[in-house]
Amino acid sequence: MKLLRFGDRGAERPGMVDADGIIRDLSSVIGDVAGHVLGDEQLAKLRAVDVSTLPIVPTETRIGACVGQVGKFICIGLNYSDHAAEAGMALPDEPVVFFKATSAITGPNDDVEIPRGSIKTDWEVELGVVIGKAAKYVSKEDALNHVAGYCVVNDLSERDFQLHRSGQWVKGKSCDTFGPIGPWLVTRDEVEDPQNLDMHLEVNGRRYQDGSTSTMHFDVAMVISHLSQFMSLQPGDVISTGTPPGVGMGQKPETYLRAGDRMTLGISGLGEQSQNVRSSE
Amino acid sequence: MKLLRFGDRGAERPGMVDADGIIRDLSSVIGDVAGHVLGDEQLAKLRAVDVSTLPIVPTETRIGACVGQVGKFICIGLNYSDHAAEAGMALPDEPVVFFKATSAITGPNDDVEIPRGSIKTDWEVELGVVIGKAAKYVSKEDALNHVAGYCVVNDLSERDFQLHRSGQWVKGKSCDTFGPIGPWLVTRDEVEDPQNLDMHLEVNGRRYQDGSTSTMHFDVAMVISHLSQFMSLQPGDVISTGTPPGVGMGQKPETYLRAGDRMTLGISGLGEQSQNVRSSE
Repeated sequence: MKLLRFGDRGAERPGMVDADGIIRDLSSVIGDVAGHVLGDEQLAKLRAVDVSTLPIVPTETRIGACVGQVGKFICIGLNYSDHAAEAGMALPDEPVVFFKATSAITGPNDDVEIPRGSIKTDWEVELGVVIGKAAKYVSKEDALNHVAGYCVVNDLSERDFQLHRSGQWVKGKSCDTFGPIGPWLVTRDEVEDPQNLDMHLEVNGRRYQDGSTSTMHFDVAMVISHLSQFMSLQPGDVISTGTPPGVGMGQKPETYLRAGDRMTLGISGLGEQSQNVRSSE
Repeated sequence: MKLLRFGDRGAERPGMVDADGIIRDLSSVIGDVAGHVLGDEQLAKLRAVDVSTLPIVPTETRIGACVGQVGKFICIGLNYSDHAAEAGMALPDEPVVFFKATSAITGPNDDVEIPRGSIKTDWEVELGVVIGKAAKYVSKEDALNHVAGYCVVNDLSERDFQLHRSGQWVKGKSCDTFGPIGPWLVTRDEVEDPQNLDMHLEVNGRRYQDGSTSTMHFDVAMVISHLSQFMSLQPGDVISTGTPPGVGMGQKPETYLRAGDRMTLGISGLGEQSQNVRSSE
């Protein structure tokens, strides 16, 4: 299934993409696409719904983040061997973990804001993992059973805020609109191998990132198991698993987003995002 | 007002402490003590309620975290001049910001779990600030108008996870039960000067922390203004503003929590917490 949320910001309603690619309104079936409907049992119930009877959502409707009520927005840093090489940094011994503010979450095609004072706003296409079942001290072998599905994430970053404003990356990762998620949550039964997905990101039509989850250093199962040793994961938590090469900071010369730019990014089978860049008011 | 939440974990109900120190059940008035009731207008309405008519909550009832549905749990590091001196570290030029997982939030008197593999679980009494009105790019002068109130936070930390597990402090700050909050949210009108509050923490009756918010390096107003330059703050967000000297890592020799220990901590006017320490299952 491809689950999504549509409608005005803060008032999104649940939806599903039907076999013909048409978005159907799930409001009569569930309240939201959020943790409480993402367990295997609840997803099985959704799968049994005859969506052809549900209202069609007009095509011009805004698409929101594909998961609502996200409790934790967890990110893995330096997790692609070719990105680490590009950055001239050693691969870490264990996953590098940081959080983005959940208030940074936005729809996949909403405008991205360059925050006041920013000079280095950068892009990062990433595979997002949405937790479906609570996980605490889970093994690598069991980890993927805790996944509801996958989605595209753009892990926007202000490099100066992240690296030069008194420690911890959170300042450069949490600005409003720095977390487009979606368009869809694709349930895990429809993703044959999360470690073999093509990823790409373009700015103004120029392709900067062209990678594959196959070069991920710590794979999804390992990341979930590792995180669950340090904190419990809850249904609806989103884990963004790191970015392949081609970020702005890695260009020569360094290249950052400016108002008026347009990003397009996607992952095979998980859909596309497209964002206009503007300055924060 | 002293607002709180009581009842079983995950099913807490809203309450208020009346003039006689008795906890009254606010369930008939509001659904939860959470962001949507923390604005000035909503708090004024609560203030007008005749609590003497509301049901009395039995004294043995569990107290939960004093804020529900917390969106962000933001912490400031190295924010006391005397703690920085104790740690032998320079005071930062700007606030050091990190996040704790909201899943770490727990009641003020719930057991604290030592996570598996931990050897350095440490305590930190801190002044918590609860946001009442959304804040984005606010000035220092206006910042305190965005505060709903204050509370006690124990910012538990696993020092080895925090400092020696591949970067970013989040791994040592987010374990389940590492964020006792409460017992009460004391509204800001009842806190004459948040920069002049005594703070203390004892383990097994021995006083380790004995400080005052008067030695805070970046004060509450500055912290809110600063954070709001990097991310928007929402009603119900909790900011923990750093700890005074006397943490376990600062002892000679270093001293950490063990199963069977008991912590008591408090801040003048904001109440007391008390936690038994046990090993994670």
